[in-house]
Amino acid sequence: MAQRVRLRGLPGELAAEFAGTMVLILFGVGVVAQVVAGGIGDHDSIAWAWGLGVTLGVYVAGRISGAHLNPAVTLALAVFKGFAWRKVLPYSLAQTAGAFVAALIVRWNYTEVLSRADPGHTIKTQGVFSTLPGNGELPVGQWGGLRDQLIGTAILLFVILALTDLRNSPPAANLAPVVIGLLVVAIGMAWGTNAGYAINPARDFGPRLASFLTGYDTAFRDQYGDLYFWVPIVGPLVGGLIGAGLYHLLIGRFLPPEGAPDAAGEPGRLPTRAENEPAKL
Amino acid sequence: MAQRVRLRGLPGELAAEFAGTMVLILFGVGVVAQVVAGGIGDHDSIAWAWGLGVTLGVYVAGRISGAHLNPAVTLALAVFKGFAWRKVLPYSLAQTAGAFVAALIVRWNYTEVLSRADPGHTIKTQGVFSTLPGNGELPVGQWGGLRDQLIGTAILLFVILALTDLRNSPPAANLAPVVIGLLVVAIGMAWGTNAGYAINPARDFGPRLASFLTGYDTAFRDQYGDLYFWVPIVGPLVGGLIGAGLYHLLIGRFLPPEGAPDAAGEPGRLPTRAENEPAKL
Amino acid sequence: MAQRVRLRGLPGELAAEFAGTMVLILFGVGVVAQVVAGGIGDHDSIAWAWGLGVTLGVYVAGRISGAHLNPAVTLALAVFKGFAWRKVLPYSLAQTAGAFVAALIVRWNYTEVLSRADPGHTIKTQGVFSTLPGNGELPVGQWGGLRDQLIGTAILLFVILALTDLRNSPPAANLAPVVIGLLVVAIGMAWGTNAGYAINPARDFGPRLASFLTGYDTAFRDQYGDLYFWVPIVGPLVGGLIGAGLYHLLIGRFLPPEGAPDAAGEPGRLPTRAENEPAKL
Amino acid sequence: MAQRVRLRGLPGELAAEFAGTMVLILFGVGVVAQVVAGGIGDHDSIAWAWGLGVTLGVYVAGRISGAHLNPAVTLALAVFKGFAWRKVLPYSLAQTAGAFVAALIVRWNYTEVLSRADPGHTIKTQGVFSTLPGNGELPVGQWGGLRDQLIGTAILLFVILALTDLRNSPPAANLAPVVIGLLVVAIGMAWGTNAGYAINPARDFGPRLASFLTGYDTAFRDQYGDLYFWVPIVGPLVGGLIGAGLYHLLIGRFLPPEGAPDAAGEPGRLPTRAENEPAKL
Repeated sequence: MAQRVRLRGLPGELAAEFAGTMVLILFGVGVVAQVVAGGIGDHDSIAWAWGLGVTLGVYVAGRISGAHLNPAVTLALAVFKGFAWRKVLPYSLAQTAGAFVAALIVRWNYTEVLSRADPGHTIKTQGVFSTLPGNGELPVGQWGGLRDQLIGTAILLFVILALTDLRNSPPAANLAPVVIGLLVVAIGMAWGTNAGYAINPARDFGPRLASFLTGYDTAFRDQYGDLYFWVPIVGPLVGGLIGAGLYHLLIGRFLPPEGAPDAAGEPGRLPTRAENEPAKL
Repeated sequence: MAQRVRLRGLPGELAAEFAGTMVLILFGVGVVAQVVAGGIGDHDSIAWAWGLGVTLGVYVAGRISGAHLNPAVTLALAVFKGFAWRKVLPYSLAQTAGAFVAALIVRWNYTEVLSRADPGHTIKTQGVFSTLPGNGELPVGQWGGLRDQLIGTAILLFVILALTDLRNSPPAANLAPVVIGLLVVAIGMAWGTNAGYAINPARDFGPRLASFLTGYDTAFRDQYGDLYFWVPIVGPLVGGLIGAGLYHLLIGRFLPPEGAPDAAGEPGRLPTRAENEPAKL
Repeated sequence: MAQRVRLRGLPGELAAEFAGTMVLILFGVGVVAQVVAGGIGDHDSIAWAWGLGVTLGVYVAGRISGAHLNPAVTLALAVFKGFAWRKVLPYSLAQTAGAFVAALIVRWNYTEVLSRADPGHTIKTQGVFSTLPGNGELPVGQWGGLRDQLIGTAILLFVILALTDLRNSPPAANLAPVVIGLLVVAIGMAWGTNAGYAINPARDFGPRLASFLTGYDTAFRDQYGDLYFWVPIVGPLVGGLIGAGLYHLLIGRFLPPEGAPDAAGEPGRLPTRAENEPAKL
Repeated sequence: MAQRVRLRGLPGELAAEFAGTMVLILFGVGVVAQVVAGGIGDHDSIAWAWGLGVTLGVYVAGRISGAHLNPAVTLALAVFKGFAWRKVLPYSLAQTAGAFVAALIVRWNYTEVLSRADPGHTIKTQGVFSTLPGNGELPVGQWGGLRDQLIGTAILLFVILALTDLRNSPPAANLAPVVIGLLVVAIGMAWGTNAGYAINPARDFGPRLASFLTGYDTAFRDQYGDLYFWVPIVGPLVGGLIGAGLYHLLIGRFLPPEGAPDAAGEPGRLPTRAENEPAKL
């Protein structure tokens, strides 16, 4: 029992959310710095390293805190899955703090190459740390960015709920974190044009603050000079709720309870779940 | 029993096919929009995000409907695996509807970048939504496209049947959806030149209709002005049957029944199936 | 018993080797055609699709024949693992036939784009089907190619034996085929410069013959006009034996018998094998 | 018992560390040679093949030695996990010897293309074998390289400990080596700008020595003419200790003992560990 108490202790959970999000951002912001300032790699490197960073961050924190690593996830789980409301704000702050510290580490490590690529620390390398509408170039304004964040985060939560729902057919052998990482790889490849796929308020605001405090004076604004920092906060929080709700509507309410008999043996169905385990010999 | 009835209910199955195909196309059409209109990524991004979209769509729908997500799969399972014929048309319509809605969402989200890249909504960005012979550029006509779709979908079904046949040695731990996604990645890399690897009538017709209704007047024609929409419908439906038949001919009829003793211990065979599980200690 | 006889029947095994190698080459030669003649993708696409083709081919054939798909594997298993010598030649012929048929299918499907990229069917697109020293361009002659094939295939067999040795710590959940595919991806990225990583006589000779019979008159020669077809046959067969022998020397002879107690619990060792399964609750 | 003695024998463990590190470097140095001297592939190929090389090397050595393959891992396990101090130096030497031999093999195989790309064997292709500050081009000096190696190796050890800690939620089905390889892929994509992500003294010093002995006279110096070889030795050894210590501080001390009850069933937590195994039917 003492073990359970210790495992459940909020300090441990917050340390895990801090560490997991830190690992995520060490890779996420790190890869954008490498591509944009170091000139090594391209957009696909960014998509892969972000996704793999999610996988690794989830493995770091999974056992202790459940590895939300994202206030939009935490909020959706509170609304739809009974996650304790009193923990929503502490989790979100720990996630943001982990992202903030990770961004400072990247900022420090890549001091020379950032200064060389963009001596004035302008919007040119601002995108290393936080997102901009249309990646700072395409004709996508605040509404285009907000719309995109609503949809992108709805997709994220819809699929995360599918991948972690024991009534559905999630990956086994503790490999769901790998598939969740692949989900983020795919979002980066398909849903990154309008707003740089923040899909996570902590991922965006923590590094944004870190860059603001280390020389990026315009960090809270977009290329048009408008305040933009709120878009990748509001969009993901609302979009996540939409996605989680749609999952319940289209999939969740049709699922049997955990442990119900499966469809194995019904003709013409692709095997899923226990069905695609080889028969025991 | 009530659970089984509910699980098996056609409304739930159709919702699952709708949602799974929607997820697939949110990534599939999304990535082509990002590459073609947003200028981010290249053909490999397209291959990866399509494949990962398949993986994620299968996890979404797998438990409820078996995750066909493709009328060519549904038809082949009806012919060769006893899938109920009365469900073939409903499944196909639900898949096409899911692809249609997903394409509308992509169309809406990428309004600005599509208008900027191709203000007239011409064949230049038509390929974001539906396939063209030779990707709209190479000298491959209708026959080249049809031939390609017959072969490509035959490969798809041949390998899907291998990856889901419990008498064979499929991936365990519920990871078959990942390998099926990798199959589609590989098809995109090797079988995409002639006809853009539709290999799925719902994937092609749903988004084609969505683009037609939102400004792409020539959506049903190819770059030569000929009606083309039927090629990625007929080719996959027939090709899938060919592939499934060949699987039975070359592999299926040589397989032992489920649960038969394995070849473990026979000298010189690579371990497969239960054989490559580490020995229990 | 009848089942075992049927499973073991040589016709079934040869059909499986034929089909598995056919699937491998449909992707392997297909992707090179797409890159070289279609202009879609790059060398990394080739590495990925070849590797994924191996994974898929192994899943197709694994249960029936053990999925050698490569005469160099078959020979090494006969020498080191007791695979029946009387099956070595039949397996090798079935593998070569599968590769031959697959190459014909690719040749047929990509008729138009091959004719457009290289109307004379010269050495320019010969590399779509079979390997050349230095990929036909770099200053690597027959000895450079042979040396490379000896080393590359030694690496292949060394690691394959590690990944399928139940006394070692192979991937479980029937996922060894995925890791074997990743092995071939890595060989393509690191060991493809000198000789195009044939590492498989069937992969090279079958498609070489198919191209010779369909218009590539110089298919058996390299860019210097010398007979070259024997290099990717002799190199892999000998190299595979070297690699398998080194595996026994450096790893195999130190392994405990299957089922021996594991090192779990010894301080400071990374968990492997059953050790990295989460503790049962 | 005799089995255990044999398994534990130091000669076998050293052979395994030698062979596993050799496999790692055959891919790692091989891919850089292919990209830099052969002109095939790009930085992403390097990141992927290095990471896959780690995966394959771990599978080779895992059962016998625990597959450290890196003196920074060996040292950290001695300090934090009770690995026997008397084995630290032998393991490190075996790892360095494996890397040295692998680099000689790559050097031999790619003789022609290395001579063609860089006839004088200068710093231009020195980076094939060992690391340089700023990849030999960017304005990053010794301090930038050392700082980077401290951080990069801290990340490596932090996440490795998470991925192999049975009290946490590591990948099961013996797939931790795959995820560890993906960790190195991500480090290559995000933490390679300043110092080429040696993160392993054996990986760097063994090939450095091999190149020095085969014509690279300036192998121990950087592009500024300063001795540099110590940076990728000292940085990783110290950085690994920092990362392992932080893992204990942020995660390890909050984990329950192995086998403690899990958090399954608590509302709002994403399932991890045994939780994401499908319910038994």
